[in-house]
Amino acid sequence: MVEASKAWGGRFASATDGRVERFTESISFDQRLFGHDIRGSIAHARMLAKVGLLTVEECRQIERGLLEIRAEIEAGTFRFLLEREDVHMNIEAALIERLGDVGRKLHTARSRNDQVATDLKLWTRDALDRIGERLVALQAAFVAGAERHREVIIPGYTHLQRAQPVLAAHDFLAHAEKLERDRSRVADCRKRLNVLPLGAAALAGTSLPIDRHEVARELEFDDVAANSLDVSSDRDFALESVFVLAMIAEHLAGWAEQWILWSTQEFGFLALPDAICTGSSIMPQKKNPDVLELIRGRVARVIGSLTTLMVLVKGLPLAYNRDLQEDKEPLFDAFDTVEACLELAAVVVDGARLRGDRIAERIEEGFLDATTLMEHLIERGVPQRTAHAVIGRLVGLCERKGLTRLADLTDADLAEADPALGTGARDRLGVANAVKAFRSYGSTAPAEVDRQIGRWKERLGL
Amino acid sequence: MVEASKAWGGRFASATDGRVERFTESISFDQRLFGHDIRGSIAHARMLAKVGLLTVEECRQIERGLLEIRAEIEAGTFRFLLEREDVHMNIEAALIERLGDVGRKLHTARSRNDQVATDLKLWTRDALDRIGERLVALQAAFVAGAERHREVIIPGYTHLQRAQPVLAAHDFLAHAEKLERDRSRVADCRKRLNVLPLGAAALAGTSLPIDRHEVARELEFDDVAANSLDVSSDRDFALESVFVLAMIAEHLAGWAEQWILWSTQEFGFLALPDAICTGSSIMPQKKNPDVLELIRGRVARVIGSLTTLMVLVKGLPLAYNRDLQEDKEPLFDAFDTVEACLELAAVVVDGARLRGDRIAERIEEGFLDATTLMEHLIERGVPQRTAHAVIGRLVGLCERKGLTRLADLTDADLAEADPALGTGARDRLGVANAVKAFRSYGSTAPAEVDRQIGRWKERLGL
Amino acid sequence: MVEASKAWGGRFASATDGRVERFTESISFDQRLFGHDIRGSIAHARMLAKVGLLTVEECRQIERGLLEIRAEIEAGTFRFLLEREDVHMNIEAALIERLGDVGRKLHTARSRNDQVATDLKLWTRDALDRIGERLVALQAAFVAGAERHREVIIPGYTHLQRAQPVLAAHDFLAHAEKLERDRSRVADCRKRLNVLPLGAAALAGTSLPIDRHEVARELEFDDVAANSLDVSSDRDFALESVFVLAMIAEHLAGWAEQWILWSTQEFGFLALPDAICTGSSIMPQKKNPDVLELIRGRVARVIGSLTTLMVLVKGLPLAYNRDLQEDKEPLFDAFDTVEACLELAAVVVDGARLRGDRIAERIEEGFLDATTLMEHLIERGVPQRTAHAVIGRLVGLCERKGLTRLADLTDADLAEADPALGTGARDRLGVANAVKAFRSYGSTAPAEVDRQIGRWKERLGL
Amino acid sequence: MVEASKAWGGRFASATDGRVERFTESISFDQRLFGHDIRGSIAHARMLAKVGLLTVEECRQIERGLLEIRAEIEAGTFRFLLEREDVHMNIEAALIERLGDVGRKLHTARSRNDQVATDLKLWTRDALDRIGERLVALQAAFVAGAERHREVIIPGYTHLQRAQPVLAAHDFLAHAEKLERDRSRVADCRKRLNVLPLGAAALAGTSLPIDRHEVARELEFDDVAANSLDVSSDRDFALESVFVLAMIAEHLAGWAEQWILWSTQEFGFLALPDAICTGSSIMPQKKNPDVLELIRGRVARVIGSLTTLMVLVKGLPLAYNRDLQEDKEPLFDAFDTVEACLELAAVVVDGARLRGDRIAERIEEGFLDATTLMEHLIERGVPQRTAHAVIGRLVGLCERKGLTRLADLTDADLAEADPALGTGARDRLGVANAVKAFRSYGSTAPAEVDRQIGRWKERLGL
Repeated sequence: MVEASKAWGGRFASATDGRVERFTESISFDQRLFGHDIRGSIAHARMLAKVGLLTVEECRQIERGLLEIRAEIEAGTFRFLLEREDVHMNIEAALIERLGDVGRKLHTARSRNDQVATDLKLWTRDALDRIGERLVALQAAFVAGAERHREVIIPGYTHLQRAQPVLAAHDFLAHAEKLERDRSRVADCRKRLNVLPLGAAALAGTSLPIDRHEVARELEFDDVAANSLDVSSDRDFALESVFVLAMIAEHLAGWAEQWILWSTQEFGFLALPDAICTGSSIMPQKKNPDVLELIRGRVARVIGSLTTLMVLVKGLPLAYNRDLQEDKEPLFDAFDTVEACLELAAVVVDGARLRGDRIAERIEEGFLDATTLMEHLIERGVPQRTAHAVIGRLVGLCERKGLTRLADLTDADLAEADPALGTGARDRLGVANAVKAFRSYGSTAPAEVDRQIGRWKERLGL
Repeated sequence: MVEASKAWGGRFASATDGRVERFTESISFDQRLFGHDIRGSIAHARMLAKVGLLTVEECRQIERGLLEIRAEIEAGTFRFLLEREDVHMNIEAALIERLGDVGRKLHTARSRNDQVATDLKLWTRDALDRIGERLVALQAAFVAGAERHREVIIPGYTHLQRAQPVLAAHDFLAHAEKLERDRSRVADCRKRLNVLPLGAAALAGTSLPIDRHEVARELEFDDVAANSLDVSSDRDFALESVFVLAMIAEHLAGWAEQWILWSTQEFGFLALPDAICTGSSIMPQKKNPDVLELIRGRVARVIGSLTTLMVLVKGLPLAYNRDLQEDKEPLFDAFDTVEACLELAAVVVDGARLRGDRIAERIEEGFLDATTLMEHLIERGVPQRTAHAVIGRLVGLCERKGLTRLADLTDADLAEADPALGTGARDRLGVANAVKAFRSYGSTAPAEVDRQIGRWKERLGL
Repeated sequence: MVEASKAWGGRFASATDGRVERFTESISFDQRLFGHDIRGSIAHARMLAKVGLLTVEECRQIERGLLEIRAEIEAGTFRFLLEREDVHMNIEAALIERLGDVGRKLHTARSRNDQVATDLKLWTRDALDRIGERLVALQAAFVAGAERHREVIIPGYTHLQRAQPVLAAHDFLAHAEKLERDRSRVADCRKRLNVLPLGAAALAGTSLPIDRHEVARELEFDDVAANSLDVSSDRDFALESVFVLAMIAEHLAGWAEQWILWSTQEFGFLALPDAICTGSSIMPQKKNPDVLELIRGRVARVIGSLTTLMVLVKGLPLAYNRDLQEDKEPLFDAFDTVEACLELAAVVVDGARLRGDRIAERIEEGFLDATTLMEHLIERGVPQRTAHAVIGRLVGLCERKGLTRLADLTDADLAEADPALGTGARDRLGVANAVKAFRSYGSTAPAEVDRQIGRWKERLGL
Repeated sequence: MVEASKAWGGRFASATDGRVERFTESISFDQRLFGHDIRGSIAHARMLAKVGLLTVEECRQIERGLLEIRAEIEAGTFRFLLEREDVHMNIEAALIERLGDVGRKLHTARSRNDQVATDLKLWTRDALDRIGERLVALQAAFVAGAERHREVIIPGYTHLQRAQPVLAAHDFLAHAEKLERDRSRVADCRKRLNVLPLGAAALAGTSLPIDRHEVARELEFDDVAANSLDVSSDRDFALESVFVLAMIAEHLAGWAEQWILWSTQEFGFLALPDAICTGSSIMPQKKNPDVLELIRGRVARVIGSLTTLMVLVKGLPLAYNRDLQEDKEPLFDAFDTVEACLELAAVVVDGARLRGDRIAERIEEGFLDATTLMEHLIERGVPQRTAHAVIGRLVGLCERKGLTRLADLTDADLAEADPALGTGARDRLGVANAVKAFRSYGSTAPAEVDRQIGRWKERLGL
């Protein structure tokens, strides 16, 4: 019988094709919304009772029934049926089986359109909160790493060519900065999301005397959506959430790339513990930074999810269209992926150790002190462009002479390049001197970096 | 003990972190490769026996063991273990449990890198073949639909504005044409894919005396990959497959959009059977074309999968990188999605009926015969641009007079616009006349459309 | 001579290949940054003077020189040279040609890395402000449209099937709601962007005694970036801006789709003025809603730009990499596209008129009052699910009887379906009654819509 | 006057809004189609003459006029007007200015819909041919590089960890293999594209007696499109072309990434000539591999273009929709980008030199011979999994003893690990021995690599 299993069978003369049922079902992936669906339904029922559309006793029965169902689902004893299409209908049908007509009243003044929007917003809000916590934990790992490696000087790179020396701590904190912008985006996204859809019904609102503000209070929404057609078609919160996640994934991928490089034989900067590496089935000597590679690779699926959502809503007219059912899987996958990546990133940061000795062996390669020497000239009145050319020629001279450091040039070489290089210039040479010379706000100057570490510990409550 | 469960534990001092194991496993999604993995392993073992790296008896044991394992997996009695990482290691470990040292020989002269590439190519080849069959079935449905609705004239649209009249059959066949290009792409993709990776080992080949051409014959590959570094890094076949699928999905989405429009109250062109529609939980009168909406929406996930793969391989150096493990889920999802969409599209095409009467009621709206009338003028020597302006003014005249058809103009109106409209022009007016007038190859001319239907039936063996 | 034209020739032995110069230049597209580059340079020079790295007179010369150059560029008399690579070097080289050594001092304590980040942030900030204004203008157009069509009732749709009646004004305001979220995203993006990069120098800061907070004040940044490595690699602001623009483009595309449908012969809801339509080169009667189609189509290029940026930064290690030069074209294109679409959308909204009479002719089709009738039953104590089935059967009865409206059923038909339909039910039938019956917050209830119009006029200062 | 400048003014009462004109024009980017537009028009005119729709003299005048216009455009003296919308109308209007009524006849039996499809296919076909040639040139550069560096052994990597030794030539040829698949895709794409659209007219064909096969012969199309509705809506060729280009760009990006790594101080494998590097405006010592970085970065814009096209056609009903005008810019940009990248890639490959001495210094790091030693054990009957564990433990022993090579272990160490390591094992140790040991087809075995070089030279005609 058509009517029995579907919420909408009344006008239909023949049953749904089995292939259609499988093609259109969402219960296989939306069942994870059960907790939020039940929370939303309880709030809805309480409001219905307050405005007189349910009696107090009916409301009590519904609430009890829903809590029992939740307990069964949590215990794994509840059976979701594919022919009941989705999580909402599975739960409601189970309620009706228990309560009969009282259960048939729960769907008063709501539609699956506003119900699923509510469930999904509640779920996403919780997920954003978890992401926020993971971000803080990873920032804390970077700050701890900065402190742990406070004395290590590494080459800073542009174009992946050695550029200027920086404190490793400065590098670690750069990642904390990026994650801070991510936290800020998470917060803004949550703020915009936190507007109640429930009560928009299918698309136009209802003639029943509901109190949406009451529901909003109960479900901790900041506001109530003001236009039902907008609600029924709106998936902004899903797209924005996945974008925010994609930005996090991008930051993690860039960091992973860098640490994969640092873990190579050639760089040799970083030691990763065995527990986070894997080997090869054929090459017995291999120890691979798989976790970092997967973190890098998984940005792809988050960007893919963002693309899916962007394409999905393209060109859909008001209000609800069934295409929107496809919003959940990319949303869930993006959250699951980024949450796991953040968790593992913190494991890696905690476990990794910079190989200070190996870094130091080659730290003087690449003329990392050239810019500091140029600035020495500038301070002595040489125009920047002139100073730049002078030092550039000194580097060229080194290469022709087979010297690998500016410090290996003679005093005569220096003085000939520019008289201003006669005095004090040697104090700027060498990586250690170069680092010490920095002083601008936000630079790798040791005092600045210490101040930043302090600021982070305070901000993160460490 | 590290060594027991991992293929690579020899050099590792400590066990893998549980979180890492969960983060890096692929068994949850690559287990569906089991049949192809076993097929590849049997071919590999036979070759090893041929070149003397296994004895005939060892080979026989391995083959028997693998077939038993396959039977267990098919029967659902095999237990995949997460700590064994992937389908390859699960199967091999089970083999070793059965055979001991003989099982330990199977992985001779291969790596998971070439093994997984082989498995995935075998799987994809089969999947492409299935897609090819589904495409034919859907083309056949469109051709049958064309025949079924041979007499129906519908408005053709550009800019979604009524343009010229066309036979509905012509419209149905347009979709068959698009799918034909898809079939051609599937075939080209299969051809390029069908080159054996196995024997590339990890990335450099092997010093063992294997015979890769023998394996290629056994597994029905057309050729053997000529460069092991290329093999180890190559995912072209995955990207190209998903692109080919995305094109199919685009074609289906465009068709679905059109039929969603046709199913509206406003167009009223199409009746869909109840069995492929669903209703609303709140609005009792609703009957929604959900299958078409989901087909339209699912192009999004295929494009998302393509994006994922495109981003995934971006900027990876030779040869294998663990990022590539992420190739499978988008590949599987794209095939599953498009296969299901093709299946359901055929169901919809078979079940749908054009509402000839309702279409006919309004078919004379929109001046669909204007272009034919213009061509009538052209045949009488009026330059096209001039003829275009003449007919344009006649349409304007109709609108000012409140007439909805050119045929409603008086002979005097026509003759005044251009003397060449005096004779014979009325025979071109009205949609039925306009359709009959067409004659160019590929046009909606009834004789042309019949010829095309014939060509399709022959081509598809209907 | 190498040194003459390049900022970095000192250490180079041979000149750049011409093909390389063309391949790497950015002047062809970054010249539009000239105003912001000069604004940034003046602020930088003033700060250098304050801290003593320039004399007051040098600063004055530089400022004067830069303003002259700006005037020349604005007048179209400045010649940008490709071999000078980018806008920064073109302007600086012109300054040096004028001022000699004084000009050579401008680049003190800065790099192109922080300079271009500053320029691009200044440009983007202005562009975001323009987008914000355009959003308000379009919202105002929708609100005016809502007032203009206050009396028109249209069908509301889900699944593009007629669902419930809504006021056209309610539909117009739904778009204003979506744009309001866009405004909020623009504001959040601007807030996060507004942190000064300048002074990060290449990647590590500087040993020169600069005052970055002074520059921030001068350029109206809210804060100073705290980590130079982060600055040098950060393009979050570009990605977030383009995402924000993509959301706007999505909203416009959905609206355009709807209005394209409304403009069809079949819907017949909307009349567009000739001035915003175009015709066909072959079909004389055509009048096409090209502007709407292009607005819909252009969401594609904004999503494409977002993808470009997402792929671009994927997997880049710290700090600056030349890949980042590719950030500008997608950013510029996204802003240009969305700004133009917003402008034209307002033109269309202002010019369009709903065809009230034609809409009214068919407004009773589709059983739009079914849900209201169901709610009538619910108010009389019938459980929702039961009421839904009752009305569903009545719709089925109409279809079997060939009736197009519930109002055409007899009293007996109604009473037989449910006794509660005996009294008062007829007052809920018909679209006009159904609209009047709504009352929930955010619904299409006339009083609610009026309140929302009022709220919008207040909020937008209309 | 409306009619004068537009091809479709006849029925329009008021002129186009200037903002609309700017928003909808395509002349700013489609003017580059002029040559193909004129070629198509000449073929069309000749056919019209053959079937009697033009006189021979009219055809001659049109052809002469079009050639004059082409000459003017090539000379830069032709003035494209924005109000004439696109390249087709600009050229036709100029023709009409010259020829009057004869010019007005050119557009007989065609529409801009089939005209632009024809132009774009002709343009794309030429562009694909150019790409094909560039691919061959780059393959030739890789083969030459392989020969030039035939003696150099480099580490092969998986997970960016040193894995096994390979000949540099083997690595170079891996890129040639990838490009070969690209060539194959280009050829397949061209084959599918090469079907004539012209004659489909707007969407339905024509009642005029045209001969499309004649036009196809003249324009060197292999076939004539069989369904006019398909033609009018088909952009498969654009999407497939851009996909094919995106695959090339991916291959180039992966190669660029690898060579950027090779160019680092840390790897030190590669020397790039000054002529293809650039420096820094602040750091005097910098020499950056900008061309490689931009090649890597530009894959992003090609993927972005692919996304744009994928989103653009999503959900468009038959037949032509104005959205499709947006197909050109991403198509052009993708071709321009990839063509330039291929050109520059060949410049880089030609100019780069492996630093054999520096590579050799560290080539024994990373136990690159471990797998060969394992295979030695396998040949002696040790099961692979056992052999893998044995060698794994030897690597672990080295690390505990502080040895960096297996060759540094004593005979006793080896024999203790496995008796089979007693004899002949030392001949497999060391990178040179390991490379010599390879023998499988497609491996890095020197004889195999030589054979591949030979095969490539023959295939490419070098």
